[in-house]
Amino acid sequence: MTELQKMGAAAKKAAAVLRTAGEKKRRALLEAAQALHAGTAEILAANAQDLQAARENGMREAMIDRLTLTEARIEAMAQGVEDVAAQRDPVGRVLSGETRPNGLKIEKITVPMGVIGIIFEARPNVTSDAAALCLMAGSAVILRGGKEAFHSNAAITAVLQDALARAGLPRDAVQLVRDTSRESSREMMGLVGYLDLLIPRGGAGLIRAVVENARVPVIETGVGNCHVYVDETADIDMAADIIFNAKTSRPSVCNAIETILVHEKIAEQALPVIAARLSEKHVELRGDARTRAILPEAVEATEADWETEYLDYILAVRVVENLEAAIEHIARYSSGHSECIVTRDLRAAEAFTANVDSAAVYVNASTRFTDGGEMGLGAEIGISTQKLHARGPMGLQEIVSYKYVIHGDGQIR
Amino acid sequence: MTELQKMGAAAKKAAAVLRTAGEKKRRALLEAAQALHAGTAEILAANAQDLQAARENGMREAMIDRLTLTEARIEAMAQGVEDVAAQRDPVGRVLSGETRPNGLKIEKITVPMGVIGIIFEARPNVTSDAAALCLMAGSAVILRGGKEAFHSNAAITAVLQDALARAGLPRDAVQLVRDTSRESSREMMGLVGYLDLLIPRGGAGLIRAVVENARVPVIETGVGNCHVYVDETADIDMAADIIFNAKTSRPSVCNAIETILVHEKIAEQALPVIAARLSEKHVELRGDARTRAILPEAVEATEADWETEYLDYILAVRVVENLEAAIEHIARYSSGHSECIVTRDLRAAEAFTANVDSAAVYVNASTRFTDGGEMGLGAEIGISTQKLHARGPMGLQEIVSYKYVIHGDGQIR
Repeated sequence: MTELQKMGAAAKKAAAVLRTAGEKKRRALLEAAQALHAGTAEILAANAQDLQAARENGMREAMIDRLTLTEARIEAMAQGVEDVAAQRDPVGRVLSGETRPNGLKIEKITVPMGVIGIIFEARPNVTSDAAALCLMAGSAVILRGGKEAFHSNAAITAVLQDALARAGLPRDAVQLVRDTSRESSREMMGLVGYLDLLIPRGGAGLIRAVVENARVPVIETGVGNCHVYVDETADIDMAADIIFNAKTSRPSVCNAIETILVHEKIAEQALPVIAARLSEKHVELRGDARTRAILPEAVEATEADWETEYLDYILAVRVVENLEAAIEHIARYSSGHSECIVTRDLRAAEAFTANVDSAAVYVNASTRFTDGGEMGLGAEIGISTQKLHARGPMGLQEIVSYKYVIHGDGQIR
Repeated sequence: MTELQKMGAAAKKAAAVLRTAGEKKRRALLEAAQALHAGTAEILAANAQDLQAARENGMREAMIDRLTLTEARIEAMAQGVEDVAAQRDPVGRVLSGETRPNGLKIEKITVPMGVIGIIFEARPNVTSDAAALCLMAGSAVILRGGKEAFHSNAAITAVLQDALARAGLPRDAVQLVRDTSRESSREMMGLVGYLDLLIPRGGAGLIRAVVENARVPVIETGVGNCHVYVDETADIDMAADIIFNAKTSRPSVCNAIETILVHEKIAEQALPVIAARLSEKHVELRGDARTRAILPEAVEATEADWETEYLDYILAVRVVENLEAAIEHIARYSSGHSECIVTRDLRAAEAFTANVDSAAVYVNASTRFTDGGEMGLGAEIGISTQKLHARGPMGLQEIVSYKYVIHGDGQIR
């Protein structure tokens, strides 16, 4: 048995206990939140080790920021764990049920996934966030974080494991992969028979690698090439507000927009207003020829611009002939995350929501609302951009499975 | 572009039409049912070609039976299509919704998967069954059947495509892969960007190959290593009836049982009764040492017997110390399909249903009820043995996805 297979076997054992752990899960999470507070000094010391190595290896500032823990960030992690503990247990809900003509009583009941794997990059807060959600959902979790955050992740995992033990639950319910080589990541993607689900959390490269290589069930998350379409009848100020918010309130996240599409009949009026708003934050515009005829300051857009998730203060702009052309552009280039139409026309709104095939489709609101908390699902483990299982933000309810429990009195067929 | 990529692109176009096709889908299915009747002669002629080749290639009788179409079987296929058409449209159901404090109105609405791929073996009836279910669920389908049934599948597909055209829907909503080589199957498993879901239908070897090789989302189906556990307090006659039914009513299907586990305190009394029932159908018993002490006629069971899905008149038998040992055996060897406890003890029933982690868990009823029709889900496209997305029988409701549609009046975050 390899190290990972041993971890998988231990996780399966832990999952069998978690399946019926009930309130112990909540107790463990409350213990964990306290333990994160109590262990702040140790966690910060481990994080300092990671930060020193990162600086020595010349890590970019944005990455260093993601890697850095502070007292306030650990406090936020603890609060996140408490928030998960405050949610309704997603396990054991009766989704539906009926008594069949032959007297069989059939119930469809939510059950834990079993063992969930998470592959993530250098964000140590994912360790506690993901572990808390998986645990509350009754699943054991195997975490494989980036090597840059290894010491931080190990310190956080140790704290969580102690809390599990204090709550009378197996420590192996939360495990961290110690081998942070590329091989361990590959092996995890092929851990058939141990992992019931693998969720990658990170950049487009990581997600692609997992989708291309995994043989265990995967949920693709988080790549957001999102669009706002400004319809012929749009309220231009509203459009400018929504675009400004969706592009600039936090450009580095997946629900930020990357391209706007503007109806040709409103372009001349709307584009200068939109551009003026965006210039407050020095957003670079990359436009097609018709956009540049109206906004000469825009850089010439190429095919690559329609495809790119900039995650930066850059916005692609295209003038389109009509609603259908906008829907077609989105069908071709979108990653299936979030899209918005700004319009006053009911038929346009209905056509857009019916025909745009993304996880979240908005009428007159910012795409930035595609978020578990904002949508009322609670903390999320990721935002699914695939159609199998869950779509959009995945909270506790989205990381459980179900089974049928059937009671009879001797029925045969 | 390869041939399959072209088919994928055509399927995506068709899927965009199907997404909002509403009642046209039903009309197409009713047309298809009529067309199957009207086209019986052509389909039988094509099937005769396949059968001749199969006999020349020395295909086994059981396989030839699966490949054979008759007027009655085509009639059953047409009836199956009509039954699907009679079901409620699974697309456009509002699963949940709420108005958020900021005024955003969020609805979670069922939508089609998009493009579904089916890889199946030499059963031509799968062509019409799968196509009808996918179509009613609003998805385009790419069918890749076994080469032994190619002429039959092609004739059925042509009939379905004509019906689609008559209902005003794109013919490419149902496509059959013409290349039946191993390579086409491999390529289909990697058709990322075209297939939203791939479902293998067939034997354990096919399923394993798809799970091992697919890079598109897959639902694992149909392997059933199912168990009946006879508890200490079981009604022995009921146990014998259930075991007899679950083993012998149709041994070749996935919801038939392969192993029984008998509590040591009831084994001496129960095993002779059970064996007597099974002897009516000449079922071969393979037992562990304790079983053979009671039933000397049983063959000695090896480790392989606990793992095997016989799909035949063979049953493995093991005497277990207690309920926990039965649950452990099932956790180790089951394929996660269907399991049953026969008991009069409420606590045993509850422990069994809570701790056995299979798609369907029965108390005092035959595992043969794990079937879309029997469970009230309508016709099924397969029985999922994985935990992602759907579990157990997958009817129309299980082959759709959902999206969030959010209405605002200018909300930003």
